[in-house]
Order: sequence, then structure tokens, then C-alpha cells
Amino acid sequence: MTIDDLMLQRGEWLQGTGPMSDVVISSRIRLARNLANYPFRNRAGESDLAEILRTVSEAALSCRSCKDATALDLDPADPLDRQVLVERHLISRQLADAPGPRGVVVTRGETLAVMINEEDHVRLQALRSGLQLTTLWGEINTLDDELAERVEFAFDGRLGYLTACPTNLGTGIRVSVMLHLPALKLTNEIVRVARAAEELRLAIRGLYGEGTDAVGDFYQISNQTTLGKSEEEIIEEFGESIIPRVVEYERAARQALIEKRPVQLDDRIWRAFGNLRTARIISSEETLLHLSHLRLGIATGRFPKMDVKELNDLIMPTQPAHLQKRTGRTMSGEERGALRAAFLRERLHHLN
Amino acid sequence: MTIDDLMLQRGEWLQGTGPMSDVVISSRIRLARNLANYPFRNRAGESDLAEILRTVSEAALSCRSCKDATALDLDPADPLDRQVLVERHLISRQLADAPGPRGVVVTRGETLAVMINEEDHVRLQALRSGLQLTTLWGEINTLDDELAERVEFAFDGRLGYLTACPTNLGTGIRVSVMLHLPALKLTNEIVRVARAAEELRLAIRGLYGEGTDAVGDFYQISNQTTLGKSEEEIIEEFGESIIPRVVEYERAARQALIEKRPVQLDDRIWRAFGNLRTARIISSEETLLHLSHLRLGIATGRFPKMDVKELNDLIMPTQPAHLQKRTGRTMSGEERGALRAAFLRERLHHLN
Repeated sequence: MTIDDLMLQRGEWLQGTGPMSDVVISSRIRLARNLANYPFRNRAGESDLAEILRTVSEAALSCRSCKDATALDLDPADPLDRQVLVERHLISRQLADAPGPRGVVVTRGETLAVMINEEDHVRLQALRSGLQLTTLWGEINTLDDELAERVEFAFDGRLGYLTACPTNLGTGIRVSVMLHLPALKLTNEIVRVARAAEELRLAIRGLYGEGTDAVGDFYQISNQTTLGKSEEEIIEEFGESIIPRVVEYERAARQALIEKRPVQLDDRIWRAFGNLRTARIISSEETLLHLSHLRLGIATGRFPKMDVKELNDLIMPTQPAHLQKRTGRTMSGEERGALRAAFLRERLHHLN
Repeated sequence: MTIDDLMLQRGEWLQGTGPMSDVVISSRIRLARNLANYPFRNRAGESDLAEILRTVSEAALSCRSCKDATALDLDPADPLDRQVLVERHLISRQLADAPGPRGVVVTRGETLAVMINEEDHVRLQALRSGLQLTTLWGEINTLDDELAERVEFAFDGRLGYLTACPTNLGTGIRVSVMLHLPALKLTNEIVRVARAAEELRLAIRGLYGEGTDAVGDFYQISNQTTLGKSEEEIIEEFGESIIPRVVEYERAARQALIEKRPVQLDDRIWRAFGNLRTARIISSEETLLHLSHLRLGIATGRFPKMDVKELNDLIMPTQPAHLQKRTGRTMSGEERGALRAAFLRERLHHLN
């Protein structure tokens, strides 16, 4: 499987099929691991990094969990290809931009990824649409066990898994759920959600993680501490208490909009459609914002022209690297804006 | 002819047919006159005002210029009806809101109007689409002569026509031209036009005259002084020098947009269409702004779905009083916004 093959498919996390997918876009679990007998990434030399890359790639590819996976060598890769992987949520921006030998092993369905030589030597990721943390935990735990049979992870009996950054120490787990909260945003109740999250020591971020704004009302909620609780406790708290409560809160806000401000709601939804269908130049941020409102229209039954799958199929192709990759060259922001608008018009034209 | 009849027609000034109508919406000349032997309006009593109204109405209706005209008594009229006349540019906001006996005589084509008991006893107005000040001057001068045969105007051999406000003293003339300057606005060159106008002692205002902003890139340029120059000099300067220069300036700005920023230009035009076609609630200001961009699209040949007449037919019906008059009752701003959006969608739906 190549990057070009990836471009042709919709990753599992964008299928729009998982539980609570009216509000939950996707769930993600990642585990941070480091190899024993090698210095941490920031102290490792070029040859160490190359050895780690080779060792972990081979180990991962030999796991049953990764039987249909591909290893992508990122250092020699085209920057555009790396950016495509970032947009697909398969690697972090940090891994894309880091120097030296590094790579990723990705399964065909894009549900499992093993990042190599990111902040830690190994970062496992399991990613699926909707709220399905238990499934993800099963998958990532299996992969973790399989890898542990093949390489030795740095582990301390008292501290747990050793990580480059102390915030990941212990379980090395981060659980993240991507939520679509347009109604809480429109009613400004998102402020209360953010405050509650802060009290629970959760992080709220945008679509592309750390340091990104919540464009298009897509919010990522994740745990910040990894020490003192078991993986199962963190997952149970997230999957059975925190996230379902936010989902209910968003659903109630949507219902309130439908009952109390239906015209304003429809105005948002239909103007989003109008703008996407007529713009001649449009940024990826504005595109996401309009797609967010269309998604709200689909979820509330007020925009019957599309289903969530069709909507999701507009998200990836309008991202900057995907756009450029398809035309086969890097472009200025203005060129991208025009191409993005042309793509959207072509895809939406038949929806009269 | 009643207000209801007016509602069914497009006033001559919105025909979009006059000279330079790619940029000039309409031209207007008004003359301020007062009857001799009556105190100025602000010192006149109720019975004076009633007598002036009756005298001038009868005189106007007997003029050949007003042979198909109707006299509308404004004091007992429904406020909504008065507002309809303001929106059609047949009376001023001041006349609509003033207390006491007052009225207007309007010709069938809405090209001539005689306002009675506005700031002055008599205000004659001639109004036509495009730049045709010479025609207007012929028409209003004839009407002025005809009226002068029937009533005695307050006139001083040295000062000229006497008026309530000294800025109108002398000729009592005001020449106004409504221009559509979207390209100068988009390129921000409008600032230079405004500065030049200021130096020439001209006033630049919005669509509804004094104290209104230039909504939708519609600008009204008018003379401020009426003393020291003859009517013919003022008209010649306006019609043959000032306005043609602004028109050329706007045309050049449009050409520059087409050549240098065609995508951005089309983006404005087509998004305007998209918003008008999909909004579920929309203000009259936003409507005018979008219609302005569509008009630019029509004038530059980049929006072939409509002609100027069809576009103009969206302007009046979406004005607040016209909207309310058609449904037969006053409405809240929110109700109007929803009704306006529904009207626009219905009118634009077939233009796929």
C-alpha cells in the first residue's frame, strides 16, 4: 500500500458508522513506548534512530495485528506525503517535521498505526469512528503484547513504562475522542463544557491536536495524566461517563435549537451549503466550518440532500496536502483555495 | 393610482435603462420652493399647512406635467404606506415622519413628485434611471414654470428663491446621482473618490440620503451649495464632468479586477448568489450587499443568470415596508428576515 492508495480510500475513522456517531466523530487510543537499551529519542544519534526504525518496523510488520500493514519510511519521503499522513491522522505533525530516521507502520484500514521515532521510540495508535474505546483498547493492547514479544520496552516496576516526557510516564496511554459540538458552540454552552473538562484535568483541542484551534466545531477531548490510574479505569471513565455526558449535552442543545430557533438553525445549515456550492476561492478552515454546519443539518434531519459518508468524503480531499497531492505539485494558498472551491462545486453541483 | 398600484410596478428609476446604467443607478433633481404669503413650514400653523397642502395639490394636478398624477394625503395615511413611498424614493424620510398636513403628488411613472410641507412648502423632484440630468432638468423646469403660473413662490430679486434652510437659498436646486461603485469599494479606491468629492464640496451618502450609510456599495453624490451658480452650470458640471469621471474610474477598477483578480471577483459574485438562494433569514442590508455584487456580476458579464431588470425587481420587494405591505401587517425584524429570505429563495430557485 502506498500513499497514493491511501488517497483513494476513506479511513475507518471517517466512515461515520460507530456508536454515537451523530456527535462522536472518532475515538483514538495511543500508547507511548521506548526500547530498552537505547537512549531516548532526543539523545539518540542518527545510527541509533536508524536501528530503532528498522527494528520496530520489522517487529510491527511481523505482528498478526499488522498483517496487512505497510511500513512507510518518512525521512526520505516527500514533505507532501508526510502532510497527507498528518491530515489522515496517521502520524503527528511532530513526526512529520522531526529530523532523522523515522517512520510509520499503517494497517490497510488505517485503524492501527505504529509511529517510530516520534517523541518516544514507539507510539502505537488505534483509531476508529464513533465511540468505541473498548474495541480500540482490545486492539491496541494486543498489538502492544505482540510487539513486547519481539522487542524489549523500557519498563520500571515502580514507575511503569518510561517515556521521554514525564506526563506520559506509567501507562503511556492517551485516550482522545473527537466530538462534533456545533450546537454547544452556537449556544455558547461550550464554555461550560470546557470548564468542566478543565476540572476533570482533561484537555480540549482542535481537529489536529495540540496547539490547534477548534475549527468547524470539532473538539478533541483527551486525558492529560497517565499515572495513578489503570488503562481500564481511564477508558471506562471516558467511554461510559465523560463522553456520553457531553454527547447528551450536545444532543439536548440540538433539540433546543430545533424547538426554539429553527429558522436560525436552518439558516446556518443552508447558507453553509450555498457557500460551499458557489465559492470560487475557499480556505480549508472555512470549508470545515461549513461542513460542520452541514453535518449538524444531517444529524438533525434538516439537510436531507446528503448522508454523513458523503459529507465525510469532502473533508479529506479538501485538506491542503490532499489537494496538492492530487494535482501532483505544491501550490500557493490562493491556488489551493481556487482548486478546493472547484472541487466542492463539482461534488455538490448535482445536489440542486 | 393608489399605494397598492405602486407596489405592482417598477418605478422608472429602477428600469436600469438610462445612459451609463452599468454604473449610474439613477439621477435626481429637486427644487425647493415656498409659497409667498405663508410663513415657512416650521412657523406655520395647522390651518396654514392644510391650506398649503390643498393649494399646491390642486395646482400640481392641473399641470400638464402631472396629467396622470395622483395626490396622496400623508397625514391620515398608514405609516407603512408612507414608508413604502420612502423606499420608492418618492418622499423623504423627513416628510414621512413630520407632523401635520402634508402630502405628495406623484406621476404614474414615478418620474415626477411634488412633496408638500416637507422642510419647504414645495419640493419638486424629477427622478430617472441612468445619467440623464438634461432630460430631468427639462422636465422639472417645465413643472416649476407650470406651478409658478398657478401659485406665487417666495422669490427675492437679489437672493433668488427663499428657502427654510439657507443652504438651499438661491436656485433651491439639488442634483443627486446614485452610483453603484462596488469595484472602487473592493479596491478601497472609494476613499480617493470621497476625498475628491469633499474638495469639490459635494456630499456622498448612502441609498437613502442624508445620515444613511452606503449599503451595498450604492453611493449618492450631490451638490451642497445652491448659491452663486446657475442651475444649468451645476447640471452641466455634474452631468458632463464629475459623474462621467467617477463612472470611468469605476469602470477602470472593474476592468482591473477582471484582469488581476478574476477568481476573487467571481467568488464575491457567486457567493452573493449562493447566500441569497439559501438564506433562511436575511436583513435588508445584507440583501442589498449581495444584490450589489450580483449587479457587478451582470455589468461585467460574469453572472449571466440574470439581467439588471430582474435584479432590480428584487430590490424594492425586499425593503422592510414593501415586505410588510404585501403581507398586510407590521412584523418584527426577525419575521421580516425570514419572509425576505423566503421571497428571495422563491425568486431565485429556478436559476440553478
